Amino acid sequence: MLVVMKAHATEEQVRAVCERIESLGYRPHAIPGAVRTAIGITGNKGAVEAGTLEEMSGVQEVIVVSKPYKLVSRDVKEDDTVVRFRGTDASFGGRDLGIIAGPCSIESREQAFAVAERVAKAGARFFRGGAYKPRTSPYAFQGLGEEGLKIMAEIRDRFGLLIVTEAIDNESLDLVNHYADMIQIGARNMQNFSLLKKAGRMRKPVLLKRGMSATLEEFLMAAEYVLSEGNYQVVLCERGVRTFADHTRNTLDLSIVPAVQKLSHLPIICDPSHGTGKRDKVLPLARAAVAVGSDGLIVEVHANPDRALSDGSQSLFPDQFDELMVEVRQIAPVVHRSVQEPQKQPAAAKAGK
Amino acid sequence: MLVVMKAHATEEQVRAVCERIESLGYRPHAIPGAVRTAIGITGNKGAVEAGTLEEMSGVQEVIVVSKPYKLVSRDVKEDDTVVRFRGTDASFGGRDLGIIAGPCSIESREQAFAVAERVAKAGARFFRGGAYKPRTSPYAFQGLGEEGLKIMAEIRDRFGLLIVTEAIDNESLDLVNHYADMIQIGARNMQNFSLLKKAGRMRKPVLLKRGMSATLEEFLMAAEYVLSEGNYQVVLCERGVRTFADHTRNTLDLSIVPAVQKLSHLPIICDPSHGTGKRDKVLPLARAAVAVGSDGLIVEVHANPDRALSDGSQSLFPDQFDELMVEVRQIAPVVHRSVQEPQKQPAAAKAGK
Amino acid sequence: MLVVMKAHATEEQVRAVCERIESLGYRPHAIPGAVRTAIGITGNKGAVEAGTLEEMSGVQEVIVVSKPYKLVSRDVKEDDTVVRFRGTDASFGGRDLGIIAGPCSIESREQAFAVAERVAKAGARFFRGGAYKPRTSPYAFQGLGEEGLKIMAEIRDRFGLLIVTEAIDNESLDLVNHYADMIQIGARNMQNFSLLKKAGRMRKPVLLKRGMSATLEEFLMAAEYVLSEGNYQVVLCERGVRTFADHTRNTLDLSIVPAVQKLSHLPIICDPSHGTGKRDKVLPLARAAVAVGSDGLIVEVHANPDRALSDGSQSLFPDQFDELMVEVRQIAPVVHRSVQEPQKQPAAAKAGK
Amino acid sequence: MLVVMKAHATEEQVRAVCERIESLGYRPHAIPGAVRTAIGITGNKGAVEAGTLEEMSGVQEVIVVSKPYKLVSRDVKEDDTVVRFRGTDASFGGRDLGIIAGPCSIESREQAFAVAERVAKAGARFFRGGAYKPRTSPYAFQGLGEEGLKIMAEIRDRFGLLIVTEAIDNESLDLVNHYADMIQIGARNMQNFSLLKKAGRMRKPVLLKRGMSATLEEFLMAAEYVLSEGNYQVVLCERGVRTFADHTRNTLDLSIVPAVQKLSHLPIICDPSHGTGKRDKVLPLARAAVAVGSDGLIVEVHANPDRALSDGSQSLFPDQFDELMVEVRQIAPVVHRSVQEPQKQPAAAKAGK
Repeated sequence: MLVVMKAHATEEQVRAVCERIESLGYRPHAIPGAVRTAIGITGNKGAVEAGTLEEMSGVQEVIVVSKPYKLVSRDVKEDDTVVRFRGTDASFGGRDLGIIAGPCSIESREQAFAVAERVAKAGARFFRGGAYKPRTSPYAFQGLGEEGLKIMAEIRDRFGLLIVTEAIDNESLDLVNHYADMIQIGARNMQNFSLLKKAGRMRKPVLLKRGMSATLEEFLMAAEYVLSEGNYQVVLCERGVRTFADHTRNTLDLSIVPAVQKLSHLPIICDPSHGTGKRDKVLPLARAAVAVGSDGLIVEVHANPDRALSDGSQSLFPDQFDELMVEVRQIAPVVHRSVQEPQKQPAAAKAGK
Repeated sequence: MLVVMKAHATEEQVRAVCERIESLGYRPHAIPGAVRTAIGITGNKGAVEAGTLEEMSGVQEVIVVSKPYKLVSRDVKEDDTVVRFRGTDASFGGRDLGIIAGPCSIESREQAFAVAERVAKAGARFFRGGAYKPRTSPYAFQGLGEEGLKIMAEIRDRFGLLIVTEAIDNESLDLVNHYADMIQIGARNMQNFSLLKKAGRMRKPVLLKRGMSATLEEFLMAAEYVLSEGNYQVVLCERGVRTFADHTRNTLDLSIVPAVQKLSHLPIICDPSHGTGKRDKVLPLARAAVAVGSDGLIVEVHANPDRALSDGSQSLFPDQFDELMVEVRQIAPVVHRSVQEPQKQPAAAKAGK
Repeated sequence: MLVVMKAHATEEQVRAVCERIESLGYRPHAIPGAVRTAIGITGNKGAVEAGTLEEMSGVQEVIVVSKPYKLVSRDVKEDDTVVRFRGTDASFGGRDLGIIAGPCSIESREQAFAVAERVAKAGARFFRGGAYKPRTSPYAFQGLGEEGLKIMAEIRDRFGLLIVTEAIDNESLDLVNHYADMIQIGARNMQNFSLLKKAGRMRKPVLLKRGMSATLEEFLMAAEYVLSEGNYQVVLCERGVRTFADHTRNTLDLSIVPAVQKLSHLPIICDPSHGTGKRDKVLPLARAAVAVGSDGLIVEVHANPDRALSDGSQSLFPDQFDELMVEVRQIAPVVHRSVQEPQKQPAAAKAGK
Repeated sequence: MLVVMKAHATEEQVRAVCERIESLGYRPHAIPGAVRTAIGITGNKGAVEAGTLEEMSGVQEVIVVSKPYKLVSRDVKEDDTVVRFRGTDASFGGRDLGIIAGPCSIESREQAFAVAERVAKAGARFFRGGAYKPRTSPYAFQGLGEEGLKIMAEIRDRFGLLIVTEAIDNESLDLVNHYADMIQIGARNMQNFSLLKKAGRMRKPVLLKRGMSATLEEFLMAAEYVLSEGNYQVVLCERGVRTFADHTRNTLDLSIVPAVQKLSHLPIICDPSHGTGKRDKVLPLARAAVAVGSDGLIVEVHANPDRALSDGSQSLFPDQFDELMVEVRQIAPVVHRSVQEPQKQPAAAKAGK
């Protein structure tokens, strides 16, 4: 159920409708659009009695949303969501592509800084690095934990990069929320609904990766879990799905980018590193992802991939990432997008560190 | 790394080896077999210095385990694990098939009791019912929570059925561990490693369902997470995988049963309800699962499937479950298995409740 | 479009309706059932003008068939098709299971006879062997061609086995039709519509294998091609589909057996050899196939699998096939089926050869 | 086995080596490269006795090729194959992208001419149109046959477009070879080895589409069948594979483009029409295909898609194809490719038609 407000409805009118919805025992989600505000209603089992709402002042119409996803749908919010980061001009979903780069795992301060310096210089505005790693084997390197988060916080200060890192359970989510700028939910946890709900109660943007065999609807419904708890800052990420094909580790399904953009207002980016699992396929698929209309990229870069503690074979050398940025800058204008120039002088560098 | 003890090694010798392993900074897992005890070593990054262990009294040999799964492997424990339940003769992995039946969700005391009475009468020894439901939509029925667990505890008392129910996060795991007899980890959480580790610290058997696109190795590694924390009572469950085929909800991959049994000592059962998603396919696939060598079945039964709050279209009517039990009893002997007779008088009934 | 005749309609009435259909420019397919005859109409683009047909004597009703498959559908023929072989009591689709066994390829007279003797003795009534092999590589052994067919014709004479062998193009189809008793169309040719149509003009039963990624509907439509040309003697065969799973060569999708049996009157058998690609999985999956309700099996057997020119690793040793037949005989009665006893004295043996 | 000739080997030396190979009972394939000629040897079961060849004049070295594909491999021919068309400057595999466009089926002269005029004007150099359609249903429109081929021959004369059309069996292959410029082998026939071999004996270029569940190796081996018969003019085509994903008809696997280009010298193009099955996904995926490095595109265009007799929902309107060409021209330079300008005056137009 969706209450569409008139174009010139006042804030008080919106508030009054929200209060009425609450008094009926449901949950209101006021979603401001370019022209008008829409108020999604969740918590209802069946149809909400529309009568009392339709007659309130400022209300244009009440619409029944038939799709299983509501808050993520373009029915509720027609214009694109732009996920912004306070105090910066970095974003996902606007004209600028959001580029995230960094190593699979934070292995040490030296390793992380070496990569961060290079990706910042090449123009990435976001730094990725795993502190909590969901590994297939219990005996494999599981990440540095909070120590890794602290290294990334230093990287933010030093290079002006925004930090994106994965939370794998309630405990790590609290810490990631504390240290990072964006909370990543990994493919293996795309239907860990408990974790999704908790991420929905955080106030930092969430990067939600598609599960290995998730349909489009399941993917959008996973995002709906986050939004339904009140966090509307969600960026989706295609990272390859599992098929019979054996020439890549996963099959990057680029068609989901226009499919998501048709149904949902949320931004979607692509991960050609996990999507292929092979270094020599990352650059061509990164170009393709931008050409298909992706709102950004997330790419693994390591100064010494052969010694990486995880996923080395899919990590780019820093020089390859430079080349990727050059080509991405060339393709972006064709799809009416741009890539921000590298920062001349990172904030912290200015401070003389 | 694996320390194989001599056939007649004493308990003290085993304990001494375990202490030595701990003193080296690793974790010992003493796994008694039919003939001899093996001690798995985890916590080592590379090879353990074998010398000091090989010379200890009672040690026959020290073997390097090259497979990524260790404790779940037949290399470590040659004979089948039989998962038993204290105070009962129900089990998984022995000669008797373990049969779990019940509704998808616990909806009410009446609904649950009605099903429980019928499945107990038909010969099931385990009762399943969801109290915490991982639903694709945040707006769908999510289960009764602790109230559902309490209803199932009553069912155990009333009908003598052992309770199997799903935990979806740390909080529900504590409660499931308190009320139930067996902790189910669902397909969507097969790689929720945080949950697996916590389940490994519980002292109740774990039913681990295969993820929708999990390979055999990933499946065994997920079990390894549970065992590596010290809980060796794990039963695996094939519940269908995701393919292009659209005549069933999932494709039940029965070939994984002999594949698991070749590599691992753990029992494996099949779920023809989720595996097909269609009521009229459950009975034939249940027969096939027993014929392929499955150690048991988990089947959804509902007295009124058309009104079920979840998964009604794949739930059997109680009469159909009776028929299933008849056919399963006929096929079991061909594969040298048996199905326990229904209890004449459930424990609690005897007590005059 | 389907004309259902009255229960006691005479042959002349049926013939008259067929002639009327032909005179309208369509093609009639008279399909006798247990109780009544139905006449399928193909060759029409849209709806046929029913009026003239409905009023003819002996006609009960005219039904529009909405499913894309018509002649293979139970709408057209409610009772099971039993594919019989002249002069024998072997069949597919009746109470007896049809068991086909033999080597992947005919390599020599000696090799083929050695296998044939054993599988006949174990109770198989059909002998399989490839004379024309569709091989992934142009440089791999492609079969003995007509020489192989001649060897199989000798096997029929010597052991009384019916011959099933694959045709891969128009030329080989003519030869297979000449020498063999049943024409196999392989998985790679399931949508070679030109070959299907030609097989539909032959008067020998066709064994049609499911394509590696064929949906149920595509599978039935492929059979429809054969029937639409007038050959109604089609046996379907599930032989495994392609998925992400890597513990078997293909994933045997047993759920398609009841799915086909619900929609179609045609028999369906299973191929656990190609379905798993691994010798030690063939026996358990063969049991499962019978338990699920399969109308028969096709199994690869080789006296010396390790020296086989193709698919050796999935071929059973003759002793293993004996064991398979023992277990199949035990499971069959549970699903109200039987397996014929081995012939005491093959026809040709009687003749003193 | 591969004989690498010296850089300045004479034609006689090459011929002498070929004759020696033939005299040994094998088949030579002389493949001229930019710098030197290599001679592939097929028809050998095991290793060829290299001695006699290594000592011949002009021979630099004899190499054992261990991959299952030989003639398609970069081991045999390091530099890219450019497939050219006599009397034109159109090609696949060179700097210019090869763009094929046209309707799914030729339905009538008017329909075909209307599309041809528009795609020629937009800059396509190749016209596609089905005369023989492999349809899932025997009752669906199967194409105009030779009449369709004749219409396309007229289109070549009228608009100067090169004709690409599918052959589905031996009979249609002879006719396609007669009327068209390029022989298409469809996805369903990718492993119709009999058809591949016959296409290999034709002297027109072959467009080979990837099967719906073909691995990279199977795809290259299918091409190997064509080359092994002496036709080295093969262009590969990715057209989507079958997965669980249901938001598109198939999943376009763009990663196979760089994967093929690494292993093989053959050109590879992409089909975003079949690859997605949805009109609104064709343009973004066409951009992505060019960005990933594809050697060209094949796109369905129809002047009136809603009335198309086949695949209308994935056909572009001519205006959309214009837009596609504009965007493709913008992306091509980023990957060092170009798109030919539309012909000012088609050949036949010059002739005053």
